[in-house]
Amino acid sequence: MGKVTVIKIGGNVIDNPEALKRFLGSFAQLPDDNVLIHGGGKVATQVAEKLGVQTTMVDGRRITDRPMLDVVTMVYGGLVNKQIVAQLQALGTNAIGLTGADGGTVLAHKRPVKEIDYGFVGDIEEVNSGQLQAFIRQDLTPVYAPLTYDREGNILNTNADTMASAIAVDLAAHNEVTLVYCFEKKGVLSNPDDDQSVIAELTPSVYAEYKASGAINKGMIPKLDNAFRALDKGVSKVIICHADELALAVASGAGTTLTQSV
Amino acid sequence: MGKVTVIKIGGNVIDNPEALKRFLGSFAQLPDDNVLIHGGGKVATQVAEKLGVQTTMVDGRRITDRPMLDVVTMVYGGLVNKQIVAQLQALGTNAIGLTGADGGTVLAHKRPVKEIDYGFVGDIEEVNSGQLQAFIRQDLTPVYAPLTYDREGNILNTNADTMASAIAVDLAAHNEVTLVYCFEKKGVLSNPDDDQSVIAELTPSVYAEYKASGAINKGMIPKLDNAFRALDKGVSKVIICHADELALAVASGAGTTLTQSV
Repeated sequence: MGKVTVIKIGGNVIDNPEALKRFLGSFAQLPDDNVLIHGGGKVATQVAEKLGVQTTMVDGRRITDRPMLDVVTMVYGGLVNKQIVAQLQALGTNAIGLTGADGGTVLAHKRPVKEIDYGFVGDIEEVNSGQLQAFIRQDLTPVYAPLTYDREGNILNTNADTMASAIAVDLAAHNEVTLVYCFEKKGVLSNPDDDQSVIAELTPSVYAEYKASGAINKGMIPKLDNAFRALDKGVSKVIICHADELALAVASGAGTTLTQSV
Repeated sequence: MGKVTVIKIGGNVIDNPEALKRFLGSFAQLPDDNVLIHGGGKVATQVAEKLGVQTTMVDGRRITDRPMLDVVTMVYGGLVNKQIVAQLQALGTNAIGLTGADGGTVLAHKRPVKEIDYGFVGDIEEVNSGQLQAFIRQDLTPVYAPLTYDREGNILNTNADTMASAIAVDLAAHNEVTLVYCFEKKGVLSNPDDDQSVIAELTPSVYAEYKASGAINKGMIPKLDNAFRALDKGVSKVIICHADELALAVASGAGTTLTQSV
């Protein structure tokens, strides 16, 4: 059973060239096989604005109409993805930039319309982990843009956290998988106002206590629920850490480590 | 020795959604293993305009400064490439969209500045045909945007005709390779004013005669010189045909077929 680390890097790092460079430097030094999933960042909104494409947000989520789909396909699948691939190649990592359409590796369906029509947004159905493993066996490092494929000719915009989790779960059937969410805090905080109050380990029962006390706040809850679901489905370990502490987090557990039990 | 067909499709087809759909329909039906290289089309110029990025052309060639490099990376590597991949996937072709940076497959250097500084334009040094063949053996169909990689972290804008020819030549070391240039005419014409005057076969000596008589015009000469060089370097056959006649051209020689000798 091989070890694979699936790492998600958020938009705030993508937006900061220096932070991205530091992050990619650590990523390139990691042991084992790795898969990177990157978020979008603000550049899509900026490009959309300049192109005269209106950005509609509902509850903090972007509505992906056809013109916006073209923008995210360009920006996430082209600009951001290929710049990351080129930088990783220069660091000696044999990166390959992908969307879910490439090799049919991440298949999704358009989110059904209920109260809100999110537009061309994909809910993931299936990850072709066989193809992903074939890439990994060839010493390629897959770098995913947060875009999936609907089997009917359409790219779909997809949440990068969800995509990372789906890829990690599928790879977990044949590998020992660590899933790492890199973001702008040092980990999950017990006191949202104190950046040093990092919770080192979270199990479902400890998480339940923090939720009950209100210490873990609204924004973290979907991320953590999603992370615990990945553990339920076979991922060995989930780490939530600062992008600058990736190497440390993978090596010795900086940030917050989520496990099924201590 | 496997048979591989390397096909270049130009910007005029990319710009016309109906023509592109027809072309991809034929492409998906081709026998053997195939590699597609697509041009850019006018959409890069349109996007650049809307983004306030000035397009500078010298002798019909785009100067690729840093903002324009970002635009072509977005448009060629993202929008156009991923839309083609998604459409091919829907047609049952397991396409994978690539630039030369992905898997380090097409390496280039920035064109040296002589009279003109073309900016971030790549002259190809090396194709990693081993990696390309590994993709093909996995039944993946590589779809290349006209972008290469400089080994130092930069994407480079590259002529799609040249890229198709370089890929064909490298694959020819281990495969029987046909190189197909699809464009807006039915083939090489003996009379530029008569679209039906297609020259069925061109050998170097026949080509020399047409050049001497002036029948083969200025724009075709670099394309044909390039094509004959590919034959010199091991490509078995070069076909120049209309995008709508791809299937016919590959099966039975519609368009113009270039060979070393009849």
